[in-house]
Amino acid sequence: MSERFDLIVLGAGSGGLSAAQSAARLGARVALFDPDALGGTCVNRGCVPKKAMWFAAQIADMHRLGAEIGFEASTPRLDWARFRALRDQYIAGIRDRYATRLGTAGIRVIAQAARLVASDTVLTDQGVEASAPHIVIATGASPRRLDLPGFELGMLSDQVFMLDAPPQHIAIVGAGYVAVEFACMMRGLGCRVDMLVREHLLTGFDRELVEALAVQMQAHGIRIVREARIESARGEPGRITLAASDGIEHGVYDAVLWAVGRVPNSGGLGLEALGVERDEAGHVLVDVGQNTSVPGVYAVGDVTDRRALTPVAVAAGRALAERLIGGQAQAKFDDPVIPSVVFSEPPMGAIGLTEQQARARYGDAVNVHTGRYTPLLWKVAGRSGQSVVKLLSVGEERKLVGIHVLGVGSDELLQGFAVAMHKGLYWRDLKSTIAIHPTAAEELLLLH
Amino acid sequence: MSERFDLIVLGAGSGGLSAAQSAARLGARVALFDPDALGGTCVNRGCVPKKAMWFAAQIADMHRLGAEIGFEASTPRLDWARFRALRDQYIAGIRDRYATRLGTAGIRVIAQAARLVASDTVLTDQGVEASAPHIVIATGASPRRLDLPGFELGMLSDQVFMLDAPPQHIAIVGAGYVAVEFACMMRGLGCRVDMLVREHLLTGFDRELVEALAVQMQAHGIRIVREARIESARGEPGRITLAASDGIEHGVYDAVLWAVGRVPNSGGLGLEALGVERDEAGHVLVDVGQNTSVPGVYAVGDVTDRRALTPVAVAAGRALAERLIGGQAQAKFDDPVIPSVVFSEPPMGAIGLTEQQARARYGDAVNVHTGRYTPLLWKVAGRSGQSVVKLLSVGEERKLVGIHVLGVGSDELLQGFAVAMHKGLYWRDLKSTIAIHPTAAEELLLLH
Repeated sequence: MSERFDLIVLGAGSGGLSAAQSAARLGARVALFDPDALGGTCVNRGCVPKKAMWFAAQIADMHRLGAEIGFEASTPRLDWARFRALRDQYIAGIRDRYATRLGTAGIRVIAQAARLVASDTVLTDQGVEASAPHIVIATGASPRRLDLPGFELGMLSDQVFMLDAPPQHIAIVGAGYVAVEFACMMRGLGCRVDMLVREHLLTGFDRELVEALAVQMQAHGIRIVREARIESARGEPGRITLAASDGIEHGVYDAVLWAVGRVPNSGGLGLEALGVERDEAGHVLVDVGQNTSVPGVYAVGDVTDRRALTPVAVAAGRALAERLIGGQAQAKFDDPVIPSVVFSEPPMGAIGLTEQQARARYGDAVNVHTGRYTPLLWKVAGRSGQSVVKLLSVGEERKLVGIHVLGVGSDELLQGFAVAMHKGLYWRDLKSTIAIHPTAAEELLLLH
Repeated sequence: MSERFDLIVLGAGSGGLSAAQSAARLGARVALFDPDALGGTCVNRGCVPKKAMWFAAQIADMHRLGAEIGFEASTPRLDWARFRALRDQYIAGIRDRYATRLGTAGIRVIAQAARLVASDTVLTDQGVEASAPHIVIATGASPRRLDLPGFELGMLSDQVFMLDAPPQHIAIVGAGYVAVEFACMMRGLGCRVDMLVREHLLTGFDRELVEALAVQMQAHGIRIVREARIESARGEPGRITLAASDGIEHGVYDAVLWAVGRVPNSGGLGLEALGVERDEAGHVLVDVGQNTSVPGVYAVGDVTDRRALTPVAVAAGRALAERLIGGQAQAKFDDPVIPSVVFSEPPMGAIGLTEQQARARYGDAVNVHTGRYTPLLWKVAGRSGQSVVKLLSVGEERKLVGIHVLGVGSDELLQGFAVAMHKGLYWRDLKSTIAIHPTAAEELLLLH
């Protein structure tokens, strides 16, 4: 006999935790199923360990910049095992706090994988059955694996976080933000890095800024090989050669990272039998209310076809709980202004439309305002690399539809502008606000 | 015979350059008088060299943080002479660009000190005379000197930038942002630092954040001595003892920095004879249109009683030129939302009212939202210091009237929120904007 709940959530990542906790706060009896670590990708294999590693790479870069401005030169050597232990301890602390919070909230956590056997019932392999009028699929996504010879010689992003020593020479196959971030971090930490890219870097970001980032990555010593379609890997662990479709061989590498996209974890959940619709890639299709094609079954986060960002999953999970449990019929997550940052070196951030997207939508009404400048300390050091600020506005009233930034500080400066843009931001608002001098952020106000 | 211009500016700092360049751009014949370096305080003795030094201190701090997370320990030793040479070269480059730009704009630059001999005429000691219907006083301010025995044994902030070697043990007398910034920078660069403070640190900033900053400064090794009223200095250069009014002696120090406020450069300009009104401290009094009490005579920047911030001087100079030359009768600078950042370690920033000011103005209608968190990398390092985010809102609609931040990232994250606040920012705007994860900036959206 199945135990009854008000809401069942499959997956204890950012989206699932948000839905479960919001629902419990609103008085629901909630069951949360996940066979893996609390916190999902973001906490255990994504944003959090990535950001920690980015900071470590930043520190190494700061050592180098320091030597250029008058500090006694010293080679920054990171003890990877020690850093990993500290980082893992920090992450374990986050998981512990989640567990405590879920307990306090009275949420039933079942550390098993569950599948839907009806639109209101889930069942685990161990035979635990539960039912509820609302079931939320929040099972996330995983790194894509390719069906090519020798694939197992390389790592997925999850495994990079488990390394206790740096690779000497790593190939990173891929062109998305995961590939770019790891390339910059590994390079910052002293590895030789080849990026093997099929087509464009960072599709979805403004081309001009992406190219400016590529220039800086190359100046940083990353070798970017374009139009490299890797068809096989051979060799042995620690000695890997990659073969591309044009017959060129790349390597020998002591490590290979496959960063070739992510696939939704939508298999084995019983969705097909229930008729829950998915796209070709396996994403669960949802409407603006996170409803799937089956009444009573919902989905949030990376398992859906929405933007795969933690804050998006969190907002969607909360809005869903407010609607289903809180009785707020209109609650939904549907924000066209989604800011995001690539933790590259230097970091790059974007809100809203790229120039390409803006021109497609608004044609000649688009105004482009671009500024390039060398950051203060880089100038002192004699570096010539440039930060880029690019604003896209529409029409005579110059309403902003896109903000793009590349350079030191881009990671932190963007959030406030996202708030302003969410309210409707005009060129005149930037011109009439007082700057904070000297910062990278003020450059957005000083454009002509 | 005096040469005629449309506008005369005394002082080539941020405010004067802004007024002169804006006026020239609008077609005016402009004369600019300054016996000193182009760029004034900000470029030569203020924001710019300060920020460069702050970055150097940040790099040293990053070395230490690095050692805590697994980098091979190394003591960060800065070659001050080399750093100074690089920084001065950078600043010389800025001055060169100003000179070029002024030349291109057709602005007559006279490298002499001028004084007003009539409300439309100025005269230099060398006998250069010029007249114009509009004269803008933009002569800035200088570090305050005290009339106490042994004062000459100490330095003013200008002189710190000329040091070719670090002091071993410095006393910083003062409690304003200059004192705090130098205390943090010198400490970051390895000096022993005593701050000798009469009363409150950082008057004008939110008390709660200032105290949280003081805790971190002390944890960083800065000794803050409160209620220390220094009455004299004695000894010799490099061996200085300070005597306080309570009979306690402080020192011996090898360096003393007097950071006891700034005084407007309003003397010797002929203002008294003309009847241009000043306050007790010597600030030229101006109305919202930058008008002094004498028609045709205006003032902008630190010489006035307005907020002594570069961007304020720049905005005021531009607005004035738009009104006088551009024919925009309503142009004025009058923004209640002035953001500012103290480049302490960690940095602290503020927009709008402090809690004290908000309560005085809005009483019980004030809502206080405070969050404290330990930054990600500090947690990994096992540090316990906390960043603080404090929002002040008013009434049921929770309109924000103050934003206060302390912690890593505060320098860059604040600008965008200032734009949002300039437009009128509500609690609901923060709650409905998507976060950028993981950043310090998102903490402003995640408060309860």
